[in-house]
Amino acid sequence: MTFADDTAIEPRTDHSWSTPIRDGWDIGGNANGGYLLALAARAMQQVGQRPDPTSITAHYLRPGAAGEANTTVSLVKTGRRFATMNATLADVDGRPVIQVLGAFSDLGAPDDGPQRVDAAPPDLPDPDDCRRVANTDGGFAPPIMDRIDLRLHPDDARFPDAPSGEARVRGWFRLLDDEPIDTIALLLAVDAFPPTAFNAKLPVAWVPTVELTCHVRARPAPGWLRCEFTTRFVTGGFLEEDGVVWDSTGRLVAQSRQLALLPRG
Amino acid sequence: MTFADDTAIEPRTDHSWSTPIRDGWDIGGNANGGYLLALAARAMQQVGQRPDPTSITAHYLRPGAAGEANTTVSLVKTGRRFATMNATLADVDGRPVIQVLGAFSDLGAPDDGPQRVDAAPPDLPDPDDCRRVANTDGGFAPPIMDRIDLRLHPDDARFPDAPSGEARVRGWFRLLDDEPIDTIALLLAVDAFPPTAFNAKLPVAWVPTVELTCHVRARPAPGWLRCEFTTRFVTGGFLEEDGVVWDSTGRLVAQSRQLALLPRG
Repeated sequence: MTFADDTAIEPRTDHSWSTPIRDGWDIGGNANGGYLLALAARAMQQVGQRPDPTSITAHYLRPGAAGEANTTVSLVKTGRRFATMNATLADVDGRPVIQVLGAFSDLGAPDDGPQRVDAAPPDLPDPDDCRRVANTDGGFAPPIMDRIDLRLHPDDARFPDAPSGEARVRGWFRLLDDEPIDTIALLLAVDAFPPTAFNAKLPVAWVPTVELTCHVRARPAPGWLRCEFTTRFVTGGFLEEDGVVWDSTGRLVAQSRQLALLPRG
Repeated sequence: MTFADDTAIEPRTDHSWSTPIRDGWDIGGNANGGYLLALAARAMQQVGQRPDPTSITAHYLRPGAAGEANTTVSLVKTGRRFATMNATLADVDGRPVIQVLGAFSDLGAPDDGPQRVDAAPPDLPDPDDCRRVANTDGGFAPPIMDRIDLRLHPDDARFPDAPSGEARVRGWFRLLDDEPIDTIALLLAVDAFPPTAFNAKLPVAWVPTVELTCHVRARPAPGWLRCEFTTRFVTGGFLEEDGVVWDSTGRLVAQSRQLALLPRG
């Protein structure tokens, strides 16, 4: 029941992979969007022969229930640096669940170029002083929360009773039993936190993702990830959610943005 | 020579369109990335039968020179709200120039839902007190600058001699002769400004775009657009550039992010 096991895939043909949606990664029966993207990305990794999803975008078309699923990958271009691919993860009836476009590369080379970082990791109490989100909790506790170890900053963890009023959620992320986090698992991390809308006092129970883009900027060092998600614009029935993920050495490892729907009424 | 003329397209078949790259929208012979995306988006608009590119992502595969080009569109799903499509704009030899994934919808409905905006348009001097970037200027003045009317905040317009030191570029954008800006022209606006890298004192002459995502949040009112582009992370040979575009009524109309390469050496 590791993340690696639950995102293991099997080839059907050169460009078609069995990518079953396993039980337990869901929110109310629908698999988490980051988990679905990780499944498709495993197939893209194989077809593109590059390990790291450097820029990857998913559009969410319909909910994904646990069960058989298939990912077809089509290679758009293989260059010196990137393999660029389309992928479709479809359900057992062949209906597309997510549509993906991504460029994979190899982020293993030493980073010796110019550096400039005008941001800092969020200041978080120790994980043990944060609030673990778990399924036994009541409140916001979908099944996926038992597959990951998510610890919210206490100030951001008082929804639904006492939301902070700020459109922000900060916290720690790791896989269970400290399973190593590869760059595919980062795609899970950027979509695993409760929505910022819960702290922004928006009158919504859920904010379905239309589209999620993640830039993986480095392979994470072992240990906890430090994560921060913020929203600046709730307009026109949409909101964006921006994520920044830092590893235990204080290095930026991923940046994400999703466009989500604010359901009406 | 309007933007509308220069992004006019002709059908070849139901899903294939002649989308010629016109002269004059280039930087050193290579068409601007936002202009290329606008061409592909015109074809997606037709196939999807929805006017507004609500979330659209392009991967840049090779430079696009002026001349014949063809865009093929494949419809992934048409739902109640969105038409989701893949598109490839290819050159006269059939080689892909950009690969696109986007969801189009109709943003014409009144926006009567919850609103929350935790940001403000950039404070800019009047357009006449800003620096017009034009091809007669010398310095940063590729041909495209004669097809648009771009006015930089004086503080952000002193590169290459005296870059501000901040990874930021702010300014006004409009089309020539006040041609109306539709939501396709916003895709041009988010990629038309000089790179933030020029003000960040990075040792680069150019920063090629790997991927650009734009969320169109509303149709712009007539008049100048107020734009701001910033970069927080230059790491691992990459940088992101985040854009926010506001219309003349002070409403957010687009949010963009691109991942760009920092060329080595």
